[in-house]
Amino acid sequence: MKTLRVAGLMSGTSLDGIDVAIVEISGRGWSKRIRTLAFHTVPYPEAVRQAILGVSNTTTHTAVISRLNFLLAELYAEALRETARRARIRLDSIDLIGSHGQTIFHEGAPVEFLGRRIASTLQIGEAAVLAERTRIPVVADFRPRDIAAGGRGAPLVPYVDYMLFRHRKLGRVALNIGGIANITAIPPSAGPEDVIGFDTGPGNMVVDALARRYTNGRWSYDRDGRLAGRGHVNRQLLDRLLKDPYFRRPPPKSAGREQYGAEFVEQLLQTGLPLLDLIATCTAFTAAAVAVGIERFVRPRMPVDELIVSGGGVHNRRMMAQLAAFLPDVNLATSTDYGVDADAKEAIAFAVLACESWRRRPANLPSATGARRAVVLGKINW
Amino acid sequence: MKTLRVAGLMSGTSLDGIDVAIVEISGRGWSKRIRTLAFHTVPYPEAVRQAILGVSNTTTHTAVISRLNFLLAELYAEALRETARRARIRLDSIDLIGSHGQTIFHEGAPVEFLGRRIASTLQIGEAAVLAERTRIPVVADFRPRDIAAGGRGAPLVPYVDYMLFRHRKLGRVALNIGGIANITAIPPSAGPEDVIGFDTGPGNMVVDALARRYTNGRWSYDRDGRLAGRGHVNRQLLDRLLKDPYFRRPPPKSAGREQYGAEFVEQLLQTGLPLLDLIATCTAFTAAAVAVGIERFVRPRMPVDELIVSGGGVHNRRMMAQLAAFLPDVNLATSTDYGVDADAKEAIAFAVLACESWRRRPANLPSATGARRAVVLGKINW
Repeated sequence: MKTLRVAGLMSGTSLDGIDVAIVEISGRGWSKRIRTLAFHTVPYPEAVRQAILGVSNTTTHTAVISRLNFLLAELYAEALRETARRARIRLDSIDLIGSHGQTIFHEGAPVEFLGRRIASTLQIGEAAVLAERTRIPVVADFRPRDIAAGGRGAPLVPYVDYMLFRHRKLGRVALNIGGIANITAIPPSAGPEDVIGFDTGPGNMVVDALARRYTNGRWSYDRDGRLAGRGHVNRQLLDRLLKDPYFRRPPPKSAGREQYGAEFVEQLLQTGLPLLDLIATCTAFTAAAVAVGIERFVRPRMPVDELIVSGGGVHNRRMMAQLAAFLPDVNLATSTDYGVDADAKEAIAFAVLACESWRRRPANLPSATGARRAVVLGKINW
Repeated sequence: MKTLRVAGLMSGTSLDGIDVAIVEISGRGWSKRIRTLAFHTVPYPEAVRQAILGVSNTTTHTAVISRLNFLLAELYAEALRETARRARIRLDSIDLIGSHGQTIFHEGAPVEFLGRRIASTLQIGEAAVLAERTRIPVVADFRPRDIAAGGRGAPLVPYVDYMLFRHRKLGRVALNIGGIANITAIPPSAGPEDVIGFDTGPGNMVVDALARRYTNGRWSYDRDGRLAGRGHVNRQLLDRLLKDPYFRRPPPKSAGREQYGAEFVEQLLQTGLPLLDLIATCTAFTAAAVAVGIERFVRPRMPVDELIVSGGGVHNRRMMAQLAAFLPDVNLATSTDYGVDADAKEAIAFAVLACESWRRRPANLPSATGARRAVVLGKINW
C-alpha cells in the first residue's frame, strides 16, 4: 500500500498547546511502519487557554463555543504550517491530517437526559477550516462514533500502542501521562481483543494547576518535578485521594477534566497544606494511581515486564522515580527508548488513526473502550 | 453513474421537527434526475423543542449542547426508520444519508473574537450516531466549509434549485418559506455563477411564535393563514419593519434566528397591537420582504417570470395571496407544480448535496454564499 505522509494534531486536556507530528506510514494492517519526520509543539496563547477553560464543562454562550470552534482550527493550521516549515517539509507533500480537536465535554457513561440514556463527547477545532487553510483532507472527531457504538469514546490510543509495542514474549504496559494518565496493557502474543486500556486517573493536570498557582503563573507545569522535590508527600492525603471509588471500578473506564479540574484543586487547597506538599502529594498520587490500576486490573491477567512511558510526565523526574518505586519489579522505559518520541506519541497516534479512517478501517479497540463493535472512527473533510 | 438512493434529513430554524425525504438520484453533473420515493415529517417532542431553544444563541451548559447533539441524532435515526417503514423501503437499500442538523448558532459575517475576525456556524445532531444506528454512511455539517472559504455558510439550496429549476428562456425565482425565507434567482440560460441567492428575511418563524402565543401553544403555526385572515395589517408597523437596514443590504446575505427570535417577538408584543393584527402584519411582512428583495436585487439583473414557492409557507393562503399581490406580474407556482414536493424540497436538497460531497464535488455556489471558491461541503461518516 502506498506510503502516506500524515500530520497528527493533538491538543489535550492539559491545555499546553498544539502538538503536531508529521509521520510517514507504510505497510498494512497491524504491520505498519511509522517514521516520524517532524514534531513540534505550539503553546496556546493565554487568552485562548482561558477561553477553552471558559467553555469546558461549564456555562457559556453558544456563540463562544461556535467562534472558538472556528478560531482553534486557524491555530491548528498555523501550528501545522510552522511545524512543516521548521522541518523543511512542503505542506503539499502531506496527504492527510488527523486532528483530535480540543475536548470541551466528555461523558463516556450514559446519563438521563430528556427521558433517554445519553453518553456524549464534544471536541472543537473545526476540521473544515483546517482542511480549507491547508488544502489537505482532514479526519477529525474520532470519539463520537465509539460512543455511538456503546463505548466510552476513550481511550483510543491503545489501538496504536498495540500496533507499536506488542511483543511475542513480554507483557508490556504503555503509559501516557498527559493531563490524564492512561495505560494500554498488552499481554505477550496478544491479539487486539486481548488489550486492556483505561485511564488510571490524573496525569499532570492537578500538578500543573498547583505549579501554576505556586509560581503565580510563571510555570505552567512542574519542570522536571523540581517543585515536587521541595515538598513532602502527605501520606494521609494520598491515602484519602486513593479511596476514590474510581480506582476500584474495573475497566473499561475513562477520566476527564470534570474529575480533576478546578473543583478538585479547590478541595486540595482547602486542606490548608503547604502548596509544595500538595504538589509532592499529587505527583505521588498520579504515580500511585497508575500502580494501583496495574496491580488491580492488569497483573491478575498478564505478566507486566515493561512499562513504556510517554507524555509530558516523562520529564517529571519525581513522578518517574515514584513510578519506579511503586512498581519495583517492572522495567521502566520511555517510548523514546523504543523509537517513538515520548512527547510526540499522542500526536503520532492520531496520524495513525486518521490513516485507518481514511482507508475505512475500524480503529477502536472494544476491549479498551467498551464498544459493542469495532467501528470506523472520525469524519472525513475532503 | 450508478443511481444512488439517498435520504435527506432537514430540521430547520422553525423547529417543527425532522423532515425526511428519500430520493433516487441518477445522471451526472447538472443533469441529475431526482425521483422522490418518500417524504415524512416527524415533529419534535415539545421537551426537545424547548431544549433546542435553550441552547440556540443563548447561555447554556456545555453538557446540554453535548448531550442534545447526541440525542437529536437518535431522533433523526428514528425519523428515518419511520419514514422508510411507512414507504416500505428497506433501510439497507439506502446508500447514503445527508443530514443538515439543527443550527444552534450562525454568524455568517465575521466578528472580532480573541483578536481575530471569526465567522462561524454550529449545527448539532451527531452524524456518527446516525451512521451507527442506521449503518448507512452519513454526510453532515455542510455549512462550515463554505464559511472557511470566506462564504456566509448560507444559502446552500440555490445549488439544488439551479439543478432543478433552471430554464433556457424564463427567469425563475425559487422561494423557500421555512423559518427564514430565502430565494434563488436563476436568469434565463444561466450558468451556476449567474445565480443570485439570499435570505429575504423572516419566513414563518415570527408568525409561528405569535400563533403559538395566540392559541396558548395548541397551534404551532398559523394553519392555512386563518389567524392572519382574522387580523388587520397595520400599515405603520409594516413600514417600520421594512425599514430594517437588512433589506437594503445587497446580497450575499443571510438571516437567522438571532434576527427574528424571541427578542424580535417581544418587541412586537410591546407595540400593544392585538395579537391577530400582529399575525396579519407579520404574514404580510414576510411576503413584502420577499417582494422587496426581488424588486431591489433581482429585477435589475434579470427578468422574473416565475416564482416557485416551497416550504411550510405554501400552505399559508394569506401569505401566498400577499405574495401574488406584491408581485402582480409574476407567475406564482409551488415547487409541487414542478414535480418537487413543496414540503420536501429542503430535505431533498440535502440528499442532493450529500450526493455531491460523497462524490467529492464542490456544491456551494459562491455567487450565493459569497465564498472565494467552490468547495466540497460536509463531513463524511463512513
